[in-house]
Amino acid sequence: MNNKPAILLIRPQLVENIGTSARAMMNCNLSEMRIVNPRDPWPLVSPQKERISAASSGADEVLNNAKMFDDTPAAIADLQVVYATTARPRDMIKEVVTPRQAITEIMDHIREGRKVGLMFGPERTGLTNEEIVCAEKIIQVPANPEFSSFNLAQCVLIMAYEWLMATSTAPASAMDLGKTRPATREELFNLFDHLERDLESGGFFTTPELKPTMVQNLRNALTRAQLTEQEVRTWHGIVTALVNSGERKKRHG
Amino acid sequence: MNNKPAILLIRPQLVENIGTSARAMMNCNLSEMRIVNPRDPWPLVSPQKERISAASSGADEVLNNAKMFDDTPAAIADLQVVYATTARPRDMIKEVVTPRQAITEIMDHIREGRKVGLMFGPERTGLTNEEIVCAEKIIQVPANPEFSSFNLAQCVLIMAYEWLMATSTAPASAMDLGKTRPATREELFNLFDHLERDLESGGFFTTPELKPTMVQNLRNALTRAQLTEQEVRTWHGIVTALVNSGERKKRHG
Repeated sequence: MNNKPAILLIRPQLVENIGTSARAMMNCNLSEMRIVNPRDPWPLVSPQKERISAASSGADEVLNNAKMFDDTPAAIADLQVVYATTARPRDMIKEVVTPRQAITEIMDHIREGRKVGLMFGPERTGLTNEEIVCAEKIIQVPANPEFSSFNLAQCVLIMAYEWLMATSTAPASAMDLGKTRPATREELFNLFDHLERDLESGGFFTTPELKPTMVQNLRNALTRAQLTEQEVRTWHGIVTALVNSGERKKRHG
Repeated sequence: MNNKPAILLIRPQLVENIGTSARAMMNCNLSEMRIVNPRDPWPLVSPQKERISAASSGADEVLNNAKMFDDTPAAIADLQVVYATTARPRDMIKEVVTPRQAITEIMDHIREGRKVGLMFGPERTGLTNEEIVCAEKIIQVPANPEFSSFNLAQCVLIMAYEWLMATSTAPASAMDLGKTRPATREELFNLFDHLERDLESGGFFTTPELKPTMVQNLRNALTRAQLTEQEVRTWHGIVTALVNSGERKKRHG
């Protein structure tokens, strides 16, 4: 997806937050950062230069391409859809959505080719009401009401992470088997036969009427483990080694 | 929900990451932090004490209740379900799930009353293979493969945020109307009548055959705005004021 939402940091105070936001964006395949009137003027000089570099952990691509603006109207001028993030509800009649709902909607806008931006306010004060008015909707994380204090970079990460999850094709669950493969049922049956035969000789099934249930439980546990072909072979070896151990003990006993 | 997953920080190196993790947890209604063998011994002294305090931003409850352990087996001894977070795939046959899938599964375990833990490794090296073996599954954020470098606190935030979203009852979308209420259709019809009557006198509908379409578009725009009863009254005032403005101009003209 080439069209992606822009991340707008409005009057950010700490370069660490700009750097960590860039890191979150780059991790989540977002690239367009716009910065309005940061406290430390750009291009940064020492020691801010070193501080942002430590925080961004190599996300230079995002920082080097960041665009600077003097005010918010200029920064959002070309955008067609704007969301404002806020921590506290404002006395405004405007739809408030969760980060997940926002990204669901934004995906639709993006598919239509619209230019979307997400605005994040300064660390302590947040966006002004004048800035929030510029947005169609407000995004709020439904956080613990008694302790709602995400910092700027945490908010950016949450939005970037939702974007990542909405665009990712990664399976929800996967198991990389390398050179081996899942065992076939026949391979499992052979292992069960081997194991149960030696358990029988070892006197494991003391009560004959309980044997079917015991066998079932044992087979269920080994089936739950989703053994690979290679592991089935290993488990044959384990059964054999345990039997051997008994034989040797008997010999040396 | 009283039963909640424990967050385990294994050999964390930077107190800032412990503090920011506590902040993320508290924001997301998680409370149980376990720390294995941190670089700076606890209880912390200056300057680490001040550094963690700045990073945690008041999440003292989580930090004060954090339990210390000498090694990972001791820290997970009472747990029944353990997930390990890793940035890179390991050469291990183990199911890898996304944070979202993990929390979906964990919600089920929690509902069954099981004790669940999420392990996070040290900043640079991550969990050892011996530690990952202790977990049923691996959690991996499907991040940009060319820049996969979430820091420790970012990983904790992502998991805590997924927990928050899974347990939150907040609506995906809401609009707080305060003391007013959505306008009824009748109130909207009255506004449309007022507006269209004055537009007619003002010569807005120059081509009679286009009038029905123009009226439709205008009504659609105002309906999309989801006006409140109060705003409908304001819009009556707006129409009246614009007409007045014309009358005054004529008088003074």
